[in-house]
Amino acid sequence: MDLADSVALRKIYDEALLRGQSYENLRYLTGTIGARLSGSPQAQQAVEWGKLTMEKAGFDRVYLQEVMVPHWVRGKKERGEIVGNKGKEVKVPVCALGGSVGTGGKLKAGVVEVRSFDELRALPEAAVKGKFVFFNRPFDDALIEPGTAYGRAGDQRRSGAIEAARRGAVGALVRSLTSARDDNPHTGTMGYDPAVTKVPAAALSTNAADRLSLLLKANSELEFELEMECETLPDVKSYNVVGEIKGSKLPEEIITVGGHLDSWDLGQGAHDDGTGVVQSMEALRLLKAAGYRPERTVRAVLFMNEENGNRGGMEYARLAAQNKENHLAAIESDGGGFTPRGFNIEADPATVVKFNQWTPLLAPYHAGSVKAGHGGTDIGPLKDAVKPKALIGFDGDSQRYFDIHHTSADTFDKVNRRELELGGAAMASLIYLLSKYGL
Amino acid sequence: MDLADSVALRKIYDEALLRGQSYENLRYLTGTIGARLSGSPQAQQAVEWGKLTMEKAGFDRVYLQEVMVPHWVRGKKERGEIVGNKGKEVKVPVCALGGSVGTGGKLKAGVVEVRSFDELRALPEAAVKGKFVFFNRPFDDALIEPGTAYGRAGDQRRSGAIEAARRGAVGALVRSLTSARDDNPHTGTMGYDPAVTKVPAAALSTNAADRLSLLLKANSELEFELEMECETLPDVKSYNVVGEIKGSKLPEEIITVGGHLDSWDLGQGAHDDGTGVVQSMEALRLLKAAGYRPERTVRAVLFMNEENGNRGGMEYARLAAQNKENHLAAIESDGGGFTPRGFNIEADPATVVKFNQWTPLLAPYHAGSVKAGHGGTDIGPLKDAVKPKALIGFDGDSQRYFDIHHTSADTFDKVNRRELELGGAAMASLIYLLSKYGL
Repeated sequence: MDLADSVALRKIYDEALLRGQSYENLRYLTGTIGARLSGSPQAQQAVEWGKLTMEKAGFDRVYLQEVMVPHWVRGKKERGEIVGNKGKEVKVPVCALGGSVGTGGKLKAGVVEVRSFDELRALPEAAVKGKFVFFNRPFDDALIEPGTAYGRAGDQRRSGAIEAARRGAVGALVRSLTSARDDNPHTGTMGYDPAVTKVPAAALSTNAADRLSLLLKANSELEFELEMECETLPDVKSYNVVGEIKGSKLPEEIITVGGHLDSWDLGQGAHDDGTGVVQSMEALRLLKAAGYRPERTVRAVLFMNEENGNRGGMEYARLAAQNKENHLAAIESDGGGFTPRGFNIEADPATVVKFNQWTPLLAPYHAGSVKAGHGGTDIGPLKDAVKPKALIGFDGDSQRYFDIHHTSADTFDKVNRRELELGGAAMASLIYLLSKYGL
Repeated sequence: MDLADSVALRKIYDEALLRGQSYENLRYLTGTIGARLSGSPQAQQAVEWGKLTMEKAGFDRVYLQEVMVPHWVRGKKERGEIVGNKGKEVKVPVCALGGSVGTGGKLKAGVVEVRSFDELRALPEAAVKGKFVFFNRPFDDALIEPGTAYGRAGDQRRSGAIEAARRGAVGALVRSLTSARDDNPHTGTMGYDPAVTKVPAAALSTNAADRLSLLLKANSELEFELEMECETLPDVKSYNVVGEIKGSKLPEEIITVGGHLDSWDLGQGAHDDGTGVVQSMEALRLLKAAGYRPERTVRAVLFMNEENGNRGGMEYARLAAQNKENHLAAIESDGGGFTPRGFNIEADPATVVKFNQWTPLLAPYHAGSVKAGHGGTDIGPLKDAVKPKALIGFDGDSQRYFDIHHTSADTFDKVNRRELELGGAAMASLIYLLSKYGL
């Protein structure tokens, strides 16, 4: 490290803060294209837009990687109602979890509330059979990182339908994965077990969950009526979009930086993960604009299908292994476009030590925090496939993230221009250092 | 420092994150009371509410400190228009700067644009006389801290009217102090020189400033018409609100924590400085709720009139000196209720070293950053009056602050509950350490 590195980083930040393009790119992706669930026409538009945007930016090579992706659609009708509450019906905000089967018309049943799978398993079969299981364990708000709370509450959404059906339930109602108390239901992926009946699964907004819980206390016999027309259609052909700047000295060593192009169908997929997409493209543009030709090859990858399958991430890794590529490191931005703190890193201790030497260069930009943590879902499959020295997750301040995550409120207006551009600059700076010094 | 400190901080954070009251207090202050410029009925309501809230919280002593404050009012009419642009009139968003005289009906004049006082002084008198001076130097967006950009652009707002009038201008038009490009004019305090004619001063939104600049390039003869009915009325009696928990071992040593109760009249004074007010009260409540009786006396002070006079801050310091009080340290939160980073500190080097010993306790909460910097306007007068060992400013992430600062957009919905409560917890944690160990 020398003074030139310090100057280079300042150039990168100047370019990002004075002439950054992440924000205007995001405006187009979220506003003109909009939500882009895998298999949707908007996902295809996003692929074409991503390719065109990187071609215009003048990267050395821009290409697509074909991949078949799941095609789940929400359908038109989506309705939830608490009934049998002394004759009064209470409509509540619900949304199907991604991947759920529909209800096939109206599905009305009693409700049994639990906080955990253990609690569910301890119930007598008669208490569950023919009912909805209502998974209502809230976020642990005392945790400083909302992402940790998300992880700990996530089993309810991911496997609630399986656990409910195993006990004879007709469906799963899941408290939205958020600390916020509001009327936005949070969707997100859920799975089925081939050996277990597929029952519908819906998220309730936190206000709706609190209300249902309260009403159940007064009347354990009340019923819930759910109607959802969601369904899974045949797989659709889609693409990862890859833009590349060839390394000047070690072109065979690859640094990947990416986000995911697909999003949930509610909202606009702004923080999840439009911001990661535009930051990844911007990181390469910033290097070029700052007059820096990387020593190693740098690739911006706009992954397809992170949300409900990770097919893009798996295909990228499969091709990397098949082509015997040499991957130095991969960086992902998929925690929202918030003010940077630094990076999470999955690497051996010696690599982390090396990485830590750079923190004094990043600290003046409030991006000097390095901690052990998750790299990212899209880049995850690279680990086994080509063994990069480090998987790195961009780490921004996440206190606001789960208020809007996977909801209709994840829109462009929730993104701050400076916070977003600072993130792209932090990622470009790290790529500069990785490319120059290796790991 | 010992394990007990670590446990104490965790208790404080648990209380803040699980049962924090800052957010609901802020909802009332901003939503039910609203904007509260010094001298307004809302400012008086805020005084009464602050006193009542701290009495209900069960602090040992709650009292008012009387102070006379300026009473400037915006008036009804406030209008700006670009005229003479080939017969077309363009209405643009303007607002009077706080303290400005009115225009006394419509004031129409040519416009001369400058970027600095030096540029203004270098102009021939004829180029300025009888015109509006349009101060249009933008924020330096390359700076990482928006607060620094605010400081560097601030002379235009503070002294623009004086410099304009010195050269014979009829008024000052000032580009809003923000990086954002939008239609919100930003108000803020401005001053006059008794030896120079008082001319009206207005802020233009950044979009309006960009438009005026563009139109001036096409037609340097265009005119601007300004109409403002603002005026300064006689001073009004108001109050600081003080809540106190008496120290158990060294009651004569005082730690002050405060924010300012007054706000500009646009918006709701949410981030500026409703958040500082509720966090200061909350810091004391958190200590009590966590079962901790401070060794030194801790005072929450809701200062009056920070925005346009700092009379409350000066009176608090005057009384402290008059009563020969022993002030250990003072903390202020007046940079918005955003995610904490740590604290800015004004102190001698030995004190800073001592302070730095605590950062490992604060780092797990992302509040471990300590850097030299401004304590706060309200606590500033304490420095000369009673020489506390440290003036400390709560430091949160400020990238979003100047988008809304002093505008109609500084409203409750811009505040995130977790970010706000984390700030109160950081302040309470610091008070715990200051009270236990001194400086």
